[in-house]
Amino acid sequence: MPEDTPRDVVVLAGGVGAARFLEGVVQVVDPSRVTVVVNTGDDAEFYGLTVSPDVDIVLFTLSGIVEPSQGWGVRDDTFNALDMLEKLGRERWFLLGDRDLAVHIHRTELLRQGLTPSQVTDDLRRRLGLAVRVLPMSDQPVRTTIRTPDGWLPFQEYFVKRRQQDDVLEIRCDGAEQASPAPGLMDAIRDASVVLISPSNPLVSVGTILSLPGVRDALRTTDATIVGVSPIVGGATIKGPADRMMRGLGMEVSAVGVARAYADFLDVLVIDQQDADLAAGVEAEGVKAIVTDTIMRDLDVKRALARVTLEQAGLQ
Amino acid sequence: MPEDTPRDVVVLAGGVGAARFLEGVVQVVDPSRVTVVVNTGDDAEFYGLTVSPDVDIVLFTLSGIVEPSQGWGVRDDTFNALDMLEKLGRERWFLLGDRDLAVHIHRTELLRQGLTPSQVTDDLRRRLGLAVRVLPMSDQPVRTTIRTPDGWLPFQEYFVKRRQQDDVLEIRCDGAEQASPAPGLMDAIRDASVVLISPSNPLVSVGTILSLPGVRDALRTTDATIVGVSPIVGGATIKGPADRMMRGLGMEVSAVGVARAYADFLDVLVIDQQDADLAAGVEAEGVKAIVTDTIMRDLDVKRALARVTLEQAGLQ
Repeated sequence: MPEDTPRDVVVLAGGVGAARFLEGVVQVVDPSRVTVVVNTGDDAEFYGLTVSPDVDIVLFTLSGIVEPSQGWGVRDDTFNALDMLEKLGRERWFLLGDRDLAVHIHRTELLRQGLTPSQVTDDLRRRLGLAVRVLPMSDQPVRTTIRTPDGWLPFQEYFVKRRQQDDVLEIRCDGAEQASPAPGLMDAIRDASVVLISPSNPLVSVGTILSLPGVRDALRTTDATIVGVSPIVGGATIKGPADRMMRGLGMEVSAVGVARAYADFLDVLVIDQQDADLAAGVEAEGVKAIVTDTIMRDLDVKRALARVTLEQAGLQ
Repeated sequence: MPEDTPRDVVVLAGGVGAARFLEGVVQVVDPSRVTVVVNTGDDAEFYGLTVSPDVDIVLFTLSGIVEPSQGWGVRDDTFNALDMLEKLGRERWFLLGDRDLAVHIHRTELLRQGLTPSQVTDDLRRRLGLAVRVLPMSDQPVRTTIRTPDGWLPFQEYFVKRRQQDDVLEIRCDGAEQASPAPGLMDAIRDASVVLISPSNPLVSVGTILSLPGVRDALRTTDATIVGVSPIVGGATIKGPADRMMRGLGMEVSAVGVARAYADFLDVLVIDQQDADLAAGVEAEGVKAIVTDTIMRDLDVKRALARVTLEQAGLQ
């Protein structure tokens, strides 16, 4: 690729679904053209260490060290540090493996030395040998908070500790109004040929990125083609609580509901062949519908899905 | 033991030798009578985590979780976090196991929350179920620094990274003059029936404790009987570089040299039967010599050695 080739592919990303989607994207387009913007609303501190789950899922997946059975954490990890912390009487519900902890130790040290989350993420990307640019969505803390019948819960308490069993009554992105998009994020959207919206939770992954001041407007006004992949297939999510969250908030739990959530900026929504009958409903929202296989069971499907999305912007 | 039984046994401690000696002490005297004062001159920061090697060796040994083959670290530990840090391009010469790291993560978090080293050590002692009081020698940082032909080195660089292969030309306890003995340390020495000097390095373990303002004077003036165990047996150390350090600094490398280093406050020095012929030399320094088996190969020897030292103060 010539040196002046722009980074013209932007991908908005949550965790596991986004990372699997990205595995296809970096196979069909030069990774050095790609900017991944990752949700940090799920970030949390455990034992004094800063953990950034979605950023790590993206980094670990693209560098090939992710534990494939779960899509997060490091492959074949052990949990001896966590066992010892439990022996010391500490809570043990957020599963941080020993290799995984090393990343949080390294991140926390750099943050304490004064580096920004963007700088730390770029350091990790480089150390893991990745060519894609990975931007945490903001250098300021934004914390997704979930209102349940038992009150407001930090995201990881709702998601991991209580296993997403609470009804979701309301979602807040604490700190978003005071936060700025990460350096380079707004320019990346403005200058992109295509912005891809990963098949991530539209409320707490993509939704958190969209809650940052200016991001939604930038998506509405960019010349880039904006192409999403529906995370809802056959009325349910492949992984995670997006379906129950959408239902709890009175949204239609379908590709149509996803199209509606993004209708103000989305050009195209890629929906699964199981949902072919919803194409008309999606288009009624003013969003072009493309029907294909979106169940990312292997790399061939991931590549094909990436190709379909990029074709919409004439990139394939 | 009645509730008003005082903590009247004080033990000055370095690392492995001290911890093995303490295993005997807590078998022959009620552990709740014992205050262990531990060298912190070897403390260091790795990956942003505060590591206090001698404190941990004492805590791990007395709580039965130490790795017995080496006398430090946690039994059967793994090194997966360290492997990952190395994969991220970090240096990897101070061997921190995964279980071991948990302790440093916990300590660092509490220190960042504003607890003092004394408070953190007491928290760890309690969590590990120990009845002995363990005092880091000071709540202020004191850093042992070693001058070698290659210049001044932080202690752990000399000790671990460069495997004690440099000649030792000078030893400095940086920060000692500005540091205060930990809360309770001076009272413990004043009110003790006996102060035991562990068979630790007289220059960089016990020596660092002695470098704190007032400690040496307190030992000279206390009514307690002060009993040391020589770490030098047959002209060499059982473990560690004390012999080479003493030689480098022009000291006699023998029990007599040890007696001389402590002569201003020491009442009794326990020396090994191999060194029986040195008893007269020790006594010429004004220190009573007791000859016994000091090679702590099993718990019986440790117990017998502890008994011999405590007898000197009429405690056995």
